Amino acid sequence: MTRIGLFGASGRMGRAIAGALEGRPDAEIVDNAPDVFVDFSAPEALEKHLGEAVAAGKPIVIGTTGLTAGHQRMIDEAATRIAVLQAANTSLGVNLLAHLVRETAARLGEDWDVEIVEMHHRHKKDAPSGTGLLLGRAAAEGRGVDLDAVADRGRDGMGEREAGRIGFAALRGGSVAGDHHVIFAGDGERIELGHRAESRAIFAQGAIRAALWLAGKPAGRYSMNDVLGLK
Amino acid sequence: MTRIGLFGASGRMGRAIAGALEGRPDAEIVDNAPDVFVDFSAPEALEKHLGEAVAAGKPIVIGTTGLTAGHQRMIDEAATRIAVLQAANTSLGVNLLAHLVRETAARLGEDWDVEIVEMHHRHKKDAPSGTGLLLGRAAAEGRGVDLDAVADRGRDGMGEREAGRIGFAALRGGSVAGDHHVIFAGDGERIELGHRAESRAIFAQGAIRAALWLAGKPAGRYSMNDVLGLK
Amino acid sequence: MTRIGLFGASGRMGRAIAGALEGRPDAEIVDNAPDVFVDFSAPEALEKHLGEAVAAGKPIVIGTTGLTAGHQRMIDEAATRIAVLQAANTSLGVNLLAHLVRETAARLGEDWDVEIVEMHHRHKKDAPSGTGLLLGRAAAEGRGVDLDAVADRGRDGMGEREAGRIGFAALRGGSVAGDHHVIFAGDGERIELGHRAESRAIFAQGAIRAALWLAGKPAGRYSMNDVLGLK
Amino acid sequence: MTRIGLFGASGRMGRAIAGALEGRPDAEIVDNAPDVFVDFSAPEALEKHLGEAVAAGKPIVIGTTGLTAGHQRMIDEAATRIAVLQAANTSLGVNLLAHLVRETAARLGEDWDVEIVEMHHRHKKDAPSGTGLLLGRAAAEGRGVDLDAVADRGRDGMGEREAGRIGFAALRGGSVAGDHHVIFAGDGERIELGHRAESRAIFAQGAIRAALWLAGKPAGRYSMNDVLGLK
Repeated sequence: MTRIGLFGASGRMGRAIAGALEGRPDAEIVDNAPDVFVDFSAPEALEKHLGEAVAAGKPIVIGTTGLTAGHQRMIDEAATRIAVLQAANTSLGVNLLAHLVRETAARLGEDWDVEIVEMHHRHKKDAPSGTGLLLGRAAAEGRGVDLDAVADRGRDGMGEREAGRIGFAALRGGSVAGDHHVIFAGDGERIELGHRAESRAIFAQGAIRAALWLAGKPAGRYSMNDVLGLK
Repeated sequence: MTRIGLFGASGRMGRAIAGALEGRPDAEIVDNAPDVFVDFSAPEALEKHLGEAVAAGKPIVIGTTGLTAGHQRMIDEAATRIAVLQAANTSLGVNLLAHLVRETAARLGEDWDVEIVEMHHRHKKDAPSGTGLLLGRAAAEGRGVDLDAVADRGRDGMGEREAGRIGFAALRGGSVAGDHHVIFAGDGERIELGHRAESRAIFAQGAIRAALWLAGKPAGRYSMNDVLGLK
Repeated sequence: MTRIGLFGASGRMGRAIAGALEGRPDAEIVDNAPDVFVDFSAPEALEKHLGEAVAAGKPIVIGTTGLTAGHQRMIDEAATRIAVLQAANTSLGVNLLAHLVRETAARLGEDWDVEIVEMHHRHKKDAPSGTGLLLGRAAAEGRGVDLDAVADRGRDGMGEREAGRIGFAALRGGSVAGDHHVIFAGDGERIELGHRAESRAIFAQGAIRAALWLAGKPAGRYSMNDVLGLK
Repeated sequence: MTRIGLFGASGRMGRAIAGALEGRPDAEIVDNAPDVFVDFSAPEALEKHLGEAVAAGKPIVIGTTGLTAGHQRMIDEAATRIAVLQAANTSLGVNLLAHLVRETAARLGEDWDVEIVEMHHRHKKDAPSGTGLLLGRAAAEGRGVDLDAVADRGRDGMGEREAGRIGFAALRGGSVAGDHHVIFAGDGERIELGHRAESRAIFAQGAIRAALWLAGKPAGRYSMNDVLGLK
């Protein structure tokens, strides 16, 4: 029985994880002495949660999105002391999709424009979504460029699209668990690669799978690809 | 034979209109003494073109998008002297879609969030598209609100969606003639109303139909709904 | 407190309705003396369930799909004695969509081809879905034709599409709660009208709303449009 | 200047190829003594056209779809004498998509159901489309199964989906050049991989590219993957 310390238990994803753990024989939520931490809370709480994990000397799964470069440095630093698995999305489908996007971007020239569109429920706080950025990074990697240098976010107003950009569009509304599509638009044709999540249950199951996998691992940075055996 | 004075003949839509007129028995492009003007050029040329039409005392179809409130006032002013038909989109499909969007927005409460997403070729200069805004206005009319007060454009960064907003997302890439989808997202379900144009030919045909219909009409503001008999 | 007699309680939708009724203050499931019956079971059980409702002199909501013309006659017959509300789909979104489809079909000529595509989970037994047929009937009504005379189901093999047909395509897989899209395809453009359900919860809530509305109503045939005030 | 002998020149694709060759400096259509044949005609004419190519000892590109196993044997036979490139679809996008589908099917277990949906213009004669079958074969290869043994075509009527099947749905209407989507539907999530063609021009360009590539090649069976350098 793996003991999980859950940060952000009252949030949307936290409640989904707690629900998915009910009655499960191999894992349980504990308040003290966890084997592994799971954090789906808010960017401003990240530093404190990383500190607790480092102090306890236990691994941590980070699913919080909307993080800054500063947060990433905190994670890098913590990963020298404990195992840290950061996942913008814990589903098999999205992580496989990212793999396909990387490969497609590597094979198609820059005359194929890349656009990423995602839709989430009305309460989501960050735009683009962490998963949208994950897919954008996959496309940028495929092209051998840095996403920050080519990301085109919040398009509005006058001006033609610049070649080589990766565009992001964020739709928000209703109770959508998370839809993502990456469009490669060439002359006269389009390739569309997408993922639809029906509910947060798949993310909760993926987060638990990641936590069970991460418990006991040595210090370092890990990703869902390690858990899922992708790449 | 209706004589058409075409502004913006060297642009994307202008060339499509010229092409669609070739060999047509009922209409031709002329340099002088047209019966009706058609303008698919650029916002900054609008004032000059309206001036020519008013000076000639002839109707004008305006398909240019990306216009400001100032441009709208110029059009209002011209429409006191000549017939002016302004159309962000001249296809039957889009204008019928706008009608469906207006009706749907009128029937659904504000607990259904409205999002509009459109995709156009990489050379399009304005975002959102004129047609996207046309659809947004239809949704706003259905709800009895002013689009300018509720439009949520270029979403990027942190913060929850505000209730009552109408969101816009603009994708650009490849050679896409024009795709538009309006999403009504409620709790647990979504209604999606969309239109896909295969080529600019439908817009060119619609513009010619509008010009033939407008020739000889008295001063005033007209729309594609008048031409198509919608509403 | 309205007492509901639930047929098909062990099925997918039956369980969803039972779950949605838990803790609800205005309705409960009873084994005896219900005020209204709700049937989401199987076609072969319909006759027996209608018989029980007629014997009890109580209204019945029928959500079972895959019914034949023979079943429809049984329902017509029962509706001369009790109130019967038949609903292929109990969500607000789908019923509003059907209204839009009817109106669109009425406005567009037969040079716009109508195709209906739906996707459901891998366990669904009937194809096309009851909701797909509901939407097809809406399109046929809009055109003033009989669906049975124009339905094109299970397209496979050689031969051009016949003008005036309404095509149906059924996708099955995974755990999809229910997606439906109606496509009007004209020359050079398409109108797409669709609905996506995230879970069966919206159908369960709609079925309960229908049962509460139907309890106490006089004999006759009713539809979700009556409950939702559509048309 | 490569001389092309075009069979099916009066058909939809034949006209598109002839149009794309006009004014091109490196290839032209000839009636006699071609360097390479291109056949986009009809299944019943295949035998005759293969015979002409074999008699002339020149390569042939075959884009005709709706072929039977008998036709495939004729092609195999001809390929022992001349170079034969058979392509259900000559676009870069579709052939890359097929590669992604093969890889995805190989990585996902059979608990992910595969469904293929395609839409084409109202005059298309075969269903499913040749490209739809090409994608289905890619999925079957990824799973290590034979498509003929698992294809589920023209779904209609009662009965649950069988595990391991690959479903096909064909939509027909309007003037759609060709849209294809492959859906992998798992528990709680879907991966969607698709392609949209805006016009037949991309297929015509691809066919010419294939013909130029094939001219002068030794006897054998070739595919677009050879031309495009995919795998």
